[in-house]
Amino acid sequence: MSLFLEVVSVSEAVEAVRRIAPLPGCEEVPLEDALHRVLARDVHADIDIPGFDRSTVDGYALAAAETTGASEAIPAMLQCRGRVGMGSADVGEISSGACRYVPTGGALPEGADAAVMIEHAEQIGDDVLIHRPVAPGENVVFRGEDFGAGKVALERGRVLSPREIGVAAAVGADRVSVVTRPKIGIISTGNELVPVVETPGPGEVRDANSYLAGAFVTERGCHPVYFGIVRDEQAMLKRAVSSALDRCDAVLVSGGSSKDERDNTAAVIAELGEVLVHGIAIAPGKPTIIGTAGGKPVIGLPGHPASTYVVLVAVVDHLLAAMQMTTVSRRTIRAQLTENVPSTRGREDYVRVSVRNGKATPVFGKSGLLNTLVQSGGLVQIPASSEGLEVGEEVEVILW
Amino acid sequence: MSLFLEVVSVSEAVEAVRRIAPLPGCEEVPLEDALHRVLARDVHADIDIPGFDRSTVDGYALAAAETTGASEAIPAMLQCRGRVGMGSADVGEISSGACRYVPTGGALPEGADAAVMIEHAEQIGDDVLIHRPVAPGENVVFRGEDFGAGKVALERGRVLSPREIGVAAAVGADRVSVVTRPKIGIISTGNELVPVVETPGPGEVRDANSYLAGAFVTERGCHPVYFGIVRDEQAMLKRAVSSALDRCDAVLVSGGSSKDERDNTAAVIAELGEVLVHGIAIAPGKPTIIGTAGGKPVIGLPGHPASTYVVLVAVVDHLLAAMQMTTVSRRTIRAQLTENVPSTRGREDYVRVSVRNGKATPVFGKSGLLNTLVQSGGLVQIPASSEGLEVGEEVEVILW
Repeated sequence: MSLFLEVVSVSEAVEAVRRIAPLPGCEEVPLEDALHRVLARDVHADIDIPGFDRSTVDGYALAAAETTGASEAIPAMLQCRGRVGMGSADVGEISSGACRYVPTGGALPEGADAAVMIEHAEQIGDDVLIHRPVAPGENVVFRGEDFGAGKVALERGRVLSPREIGVAAAVGADRVSVVTRPKIGIISTGNELVPVVETPGPGEVRDANSYLAGAFVTERGCHPVYFGIVRDEQAMLKRAVSSALDRCDAVLVSGGSSKDERDNTAAVIAELGEVLVHGIAIAPGKPTIIGTAGGKPVIGLPGHPASTYVVLVAVVDHLLAAMQMTTVSRRTIRAQLTENVPSTRGREDYVRVSVRNGKATPVFGKSGLLNTLVQSGGLVQIPASSEGLEVGEEVEVILW
Repeated sequence: MSLFLEVVSVSEAVEAVRRIAPLPGCEEVPLEDALHRVLARDVHADIDIPGFDRSTVDGYALAAAETTGASEAIPAMLQCRGRVGMGSADVGEISSGACRYVPTGGALPEGADAAVMIEHAEQIGDDVLIHRPVAPGENVVFRGEDFGAGKVALERGRVLSPREIGVAAAVGADRVSVVTRPKIGIISTGNELVPVVETPGPGEVRDANSYLAGAFVTERGCHPVYFGIVRDEQAMLKRAVSSALDRCDAVLVSGGSSKDERDNTAAVIAELGEVLVHGIAIAPGKPTIIGTAGGKPVIGLPGHPASTYVVLVAVVDHLLAAMQMTTVSRRTIRAQLTENVPSTRGREDYVRVSVRNGKATPVFGKSGLLNTLVQSGGLVQIPASSEGLEVGEEVEVILW
């Protein structure tokens, strides 16, 4: 069995993970717990919103026609027939030559089709002088104008920001159907790894990748399920991956920084399912493996946390988005490069940069250093077709 | 008691809320629960990271000096003294003329100060031909080079992204001290309001603001505490605000869309503490109240959800950030306006826009419509000094 497949481009890798993303389930949650979830079903307005013609100002409800030609010099004069109470069902009616005071959000009386702001009127006893004309519908939201009864207020696929949560509340959706959070199994492999609570001995390092990948998938709306550190031994890794596949919707195996270990991960995936990609033309992050087993994605991430993070951002992000019926939305800014950045044609390079006052400064030094992750503000992507970027060039920075 | 204070600018309002923000407490949480929390104490490296000189490639560990002048034509020849195992304490030693195979992440033997990539070497039996020179330190991370023992790895005040979580794991911080999540009391007031589960009668609307504000403060790392709907009656509102102040670090009172209601909120704050700002030169959102009671901020938000949201973004966001020892970090993009947008000098206007292909199109129509919140992609701020923006102008869009 040859595992030495061709190295694929980043876009091919992204296509591959989107293709193998399993379809998500859905569940109903209370609206107050739905922040940042993805809508699985449209939310409809149960009734007309608002349910009545409503003033958007403090002022006088009236028939717009009564104000035709009104001005400071020659105001229209109307008779005030009292006030509309907030939330009151008794809005009354106005006849020709009459108006009623209405607070912001109050209901318009029968016969009114506009409201005049209090600032443009003057009340003298029961008389109200209107100093400027209003058009029909001015300062008013009509019944059903915001959302019509039975109409779609929020479409499925929307990520529920606070604004969508507010709209859902307004249309009476105290529970919403959302995409189930994918469960992502996280395994770290490597004989050099010790748990975070331990002090590494000679040749050993702590397992940072489990935390890094776990926090990343959490940030992307998924549930991490941790399977701990597995020694670099094929039978043990196979058992761990099988167990993670049983309990999760996808599995990330990080580690395998050395060639032997990488081959081990690939061999386990091949035994349990199929290796689709073995190596991506990306730097850092080349030794990435994409496979499936039992209809679930299994991704082999590079061993070094800095490389792992680039692959999480450049490739795995798309998998997690697809598993939630959505697409990756990136925070980017444009900045000017302060130095030349060489690159190798045929490989997509991701350069860590710090960003300050519109300038992007490459965080050079050794790419294997973990501290570059927290000393940089984002990534600049250099396309595979480019031999590098030049100082002064405007680049797009993918903010971390 | 006059509550008709001067309307203040947005920047004065922001300054006011930052000034009254109570200092946060701190708590220790397990690292896996610390995502997006704010570090309250520096995180130090407990030991040198890495704890040993480490290869960053699969290749041969050697003394760089041995490769001086090496080339394809005249390679340097070294004797291979076996392999370094991953995580192994037994790294051995190399003497003059010798090297050892080392996997990525493996420890360098005594006497080695660099590694040659396997691609640049050729092993024939026990002999290894090195085809190019390496410099001391090449392809190696030295002991303590990433983080020195006892040094600060992450400074307090940092928001813990997945990358900081990974670094904390690497330096052994399985628990971290973070800023306590502020508890924000949320009250909706208004006689027209009914709970989301109810069908509004004539003149009534559902309480969208509690959900909107609750989701907003959650998104900003705070805990919302809901105190429900309070009728527009001073004694009842005072009781609700007092009770919220007892249990929370700050209180948001939304509603009071009409002048009478606004005055009611202001009167309650004045009774319990002090009104600092009564009206902001912002549109929408002018009738915003900023006060304190018992050393805690109390903010009166406008009644209409669309106005409330603008005030949450423009002002309250700064309060919540200050209460967590941090500052507002906004997602913005630059886009070209597709239409003229008039504005009134002396007032900061926030215009909802939809963004597509670098173009920002104002979502005009009635600003009182809730659906503008979900049909727009962000806000364009028009400074108080401006009389409007012109079609074609490049503007910064604060993405929702």
